[in-house]
Amino acid sequence: MKAEFINPFLAAAKNVLETMAQTKVNAGKPLLKEEPVTYGEITGIIGMASDKIEGTMVISFEKSCILKIVGNMLYEPPKSEIDDEIVDAVGELTNMICGGAKAELAKLNQKFDLATPTMVVGTGVAITVFSDAPTLIIPFDTENGKFVIEANLMEK
Amino acid sequence: MKAEFINPFLAAAKNVLETMAQTKVNAGKPLLKEEPVTYGEITGIIGMASDKIEGTMVISFEKSCILKIVGNMLYEPPKSEIDDEIVDAVGELTNMICGGAKAELAKLNQKFDLATPTMVVGTGVAITVFSDAPTLIIPFDTENGKFVIEANLMEK
Repeated sequence: MKAEFINPFLAAAKNVLETMAQTKVNAGKPLLKEEPVTYGEITGIIGMASDKIEGTMVISFEKSCILKIVGNMLYEPPKSEIDDEIVDAVGELTNMICGGAKAELAKLNQKFDLATPTMVVGTGVAITVFSDAPTLIIPFDTENGKFVIEANLMEK
Repeated sequence: MKAEFINPFLAAAKNVLETMAQTKVNAGKPLLKEEPVTYGEITGIIGMASDKIEGTMVISFEKSCILKIVGNMLYEPPKSEIDDEIVDAVGELTNMICGGAKAELAKLNQKFDLATPTMVVGTGVAITVFSDAPTLIIPFDTENGKFVIEANLMEK
């Protein structure tokens, strides 16, 4: 994946979380994914596909981070555990962030449709993307913990 | 998802595993997914997308089952642990099975492109699809253990 294609994901994550969840987000320097990495307790995965492009975006949250984000989205105090409502919110955030990136990438002539998000709950989960194209990782910090986005986009 | 759309996934799984991995596969009765389910030690996830359709296919294997399948694919004795080669093989099987289903579904006027497969390794992992459409589960048995396919396909 070309480095210029990572910025739309970064911008969309900041935009969605700041407007939908009043959550200030600091993005670290994007890095190349070298091996399967174990991330947070809850992960959203969404496919991108067209006749010219295939890709996947993964977003994975530490528990404290997602509980606070969803609390903010609902104008409620954060819950103490990941439940169906949290899982659902991760699906919605995955859709919105990748949808935001999609709109920007279309302007760079990278056009694709989005598949259905899938959410994975569990600790000690290692995720690998099956692609010859490099996967880029953006680490993010919030006041209540970290999350990461991985993106992989390949012209066929 | 309409019940008739499940058969292409069932047929593709049988066909790919019988021809590529000399593995006899018995399919159980498809059932509706009612809640997040925890499956096997290794799971492949692949998105399906077009301007008219969105979906996801999930395939999850018990460890003993995938180790034997990959051993058969490579004409080698089964390994004892899940390693990079096994993870890669799950990506390839995910691609091939969903690719087989895609060809059949196109004949039913369900046309879409495939996203990049993602593989999740870990025990005690619960997977949820973020969709208003029902998700169908096909349980499979092999001589060396079980696997399941989940499919969700929705016209936009």
